[in-house]
Amino acid sequence: MRECLENVRKKQPLIHSITNYVTANDVANVLLACGASPIMADDVCEAEEITAGCAGLNLNLGTPNPRKAEAMKKAGKLSNQLGHIVLLDPVGAGASSFRKALSAELLKEIKFDAVRGNISEIRALALGSGVERGVDAASGEHITEENLSRMVDFVKQFSRKTGSVIAVTGEIDLVADGDVCYVIRNGRPEMSLVTGTGCQLSAIMTAFLAANPGRRLLAAAAAVCMYGVAGETAWRNLKNGEGTAAYRSRIIDAVSFMDGKSLEEGARYEIR
Amino acid sequence: MRECLENVRKKQPLIHSITNYVTANDVANVLLACGASPIMADDVCEAEEITAGCAGLNLNLGTPNPRKAEAMKKAGKLSNQLGHIVLLDPVGAGASSFRKALSAELLKEIKFDAVRGNISEIRALALGSGVERGVDAASGEHITEENLSRMVDFVKQFSRKTGSVIAVTGEIDLVADGDVCYVIRNGRPEMSLVTGTGCQLSAIMTAFLAANPGRRLLAAAAAVCMYGVAGETAWRNLKNGEGTAAYRSRIIDAVSFMDGKSLEEGARYEIR
Amino acid sequence: MRECLENVRKKQPLIHSITNYVTANDVANVLLACGASPIMADDVCEAEEITAGCAGLNLNLGTPNPRKAEAMKKAGKLSNQLGHIVLLDPVGAGASSFRKALSAELLKEIKFDAVRGNISEIRALALGSGVERGVDAASGEHITEENLSRMVDFVKQFSRKTGSVIAVTGEIDLVADGDVCYVIRNGRPEMSLVTGTGCQLSAIMTAFLAANPGRRLLAAAAAVCMYGVAGETAWRNLKNGEGTAAYRSRIIDAVSFMDGKSLEEGARYEIR
Repeated sequence: MRECLENVRKKQPLIHSITNYVTANDVANVLLACGASPIMADDVCEAEEITAGCAGLNLNLGTPNPRKAEAMKKAGKLSNQLGHIVLLDPVGAGASSFRKALSAELLKEIKFDAVRGNISEIRALALGSGVERGVDAASGEHITEENLSRMVDFVKQFSRKTGSVIAVTGEIDLVADGDVCYVIRNGRPEMSLVTGTGCQLSAIMTAFLAANPGRRLLAAAAAVCMYGVAGETAWRNLKNGEGTAAYRSRIIDAVSFMDGKSLEEGARYEIR
Repeated sequence: MRECLENVRKKQPLIHSITNYVTANDVANVLLACGASPIMADDVCEAEEITAGCAGLNLNLGTPNPRKAEAMKKAGKLSNQLGHIVLLDPVGAGASSFRKALSAELLKEIKFDAVRGNISEIRALALGSGVERGVDAASGEHITEENLSRMVDFVKQFSRKTGSVIAVTGEIDLVADGDVCYVIRNGRPEMSLVTGTGCQLSAIMTAFLAANPGRRLLAAAAAVCMYGVAGETAWRNLKNGEGTAAYRSRIIDAVSFMDGKSLEEGARYEIR
Repeated sequence: MRECLENVRKKQPLIHSITNYVTANDVANVLLACGASPIMADDVCEAEEITAGCAGLNLNLGTPNPRKAEAMKKAGKLSNQLGHIVLLDPVGAGASSFRKALSAELLKEIKFDAVRGNISEIRALALGSGVERGVDAASGEHITEENLSRMVDFVKQFSRKTGSVIAVTGEIDLVADGDVCYVIRNGRPEMSLVTGTGCQLSAIMTAFLAANPGRRLLAAAAAVCMYGVAGETAWRNLKNGEGTAAYRSRIIDAVSFMDGKSLEEGARYEIR
């Protein structure tokens, strides 16, 4: 994992995010903090051209509209043609018919290197794409020690169906391809009190994949561990009188001074 | 007021904000900080469906355009049908004809549980809606001890006209229905040096109303007191070398660890 | 320079930014921090009317689309008619054909008081507008002591071509009209690890020009020095455990308590 982070800092991949305006600033800043470079363009007037000049494309479904959806499709297809990294973050995929339909179309028309979401988002995608086994397991809100082995099975199955690395993040994080699943126990529950931590992680993951070609699964797992370790470091660094807004800053701070050694020592995972 | 805050933390109402992109991140984070959950969708392709799944709807007129205006109208009407809480924040209502016309249309077509703005915004709305008595009083930029009783009268009158709880915030805050007005003296003048403190308060107020059905006036007043107390706590927590950006964070921090007792002890208001 | 800052704090000019959603919050907050007032509107439904009520207009090309482009053109032309300050920040001018064409059109149809960008953005503009001499010098990524005199020449030449004050910011900053160039050595390289520092400076510069009529060059140079000094102060104020997100806040903090004396003492420039 150490080398995965070091490659991001060395190669400084340019990452194009077509994303929501709620967390766009944090997404850009966390990309800079981990060593990558951000660029954002969300209109068809330029989305493809911007994508062509980047190493990775991060598609985030927050605050969607038909214009942005069209830009996502065009940019995603072009990324596939150019062999660039493409990631899908299906924010609120189950919250509206529009997001459900859009994520189904994107999954059908674009080959994603990775998909990252919480369990209910990933479940909404899986249901839409005809995955059967294990979807029941995912009907709860959380991944727990009790349902873990069925969840691992479900995530691997969805990965086989899509050909993408699947990352499900929550109290326990699962990052899997069709054969192997990293079960990751980094992070803090308080991270869910900051808006956009999921969006940030998706952007970081895109950068990790772009800087580590040929090692998609390891790079995705390294990104999840790194952001989780940053959440733990940030929590320890909180001072008296600081709350959730300070925590938001301190997470990005911790990403900015994370090195390979800290990541290696802090990562807590098993492989199933 | 204590119970109003505790209800937000207990019920964690999901609040849909159709809002401007300048302060959307702070709005989402402050909702999390007070115990509510944020969601944002601003396009007609999904605004109604998202609203249907929420407890409250917060309509904010910043950075408007015709597409967002349509989403606001549809989401607002549906909220009325479903009996959900709806709040209007007429940001810059007097600054353009478009905002003036849009806020008038919204007031006509939607029944708002509450309206929150500064005095010039509320005055622009009142003029548009035919309120006569007291509008002159509101022609100054501030609510002062000198014009207080006429202002209280004006705000009550506008509440009777609209059927909404009216909250006018500034150095002195007024929160009134047709009969009763809370005159609130919490907060710090430095809060106006942070962009979006008004937007944040409107979101919090929507959450307070959603979590406290049947007590609209008390819930709205509690939200104003709570945010004002947070501004005072944040000011005391500032360290050497910290300025307006640190203050912005520390206000949200103070909201995140506010409890019912601190609110009860810190609230400074009289009822007229 | 001292007086330039003091005029902003005294006159509190209202600045309209048509800008990207990635850094809009920081732009609004830094305008408040330096003593100005922000307002944002990006749709033709109101952009002209909002502009008419402001002292300055800041056009920023980040996350562009055809609707925002139209608003920029109309607002820019009206500002020219009204004799208001107009500034162009050609974010990513070389990154897409749309931005290249839009910035060329804006330069043709609107008379800008100032243009601020990094060297590759300014070079993209200059190539588009037929400047020949010195463009080669600007083909490197940086302004260095070695290419400095040719760069100064290039920037003056582009200023003569456009009639605008030209500000090129990077490790060394150049602020020039056709005859005189400020060579400024304030700031910290770490400022480039925070997204939107360029956007913030453009907004500040618009405020400085609006508050100091008749002294465009001095006001623009004072804005660059002030923001650079803020970056230095913020760096010194960083505590253990703080990284790039804290730095982002501390820069705006430093702007918020900057006074004329600190600016005068901290500014490091020569005139060529």
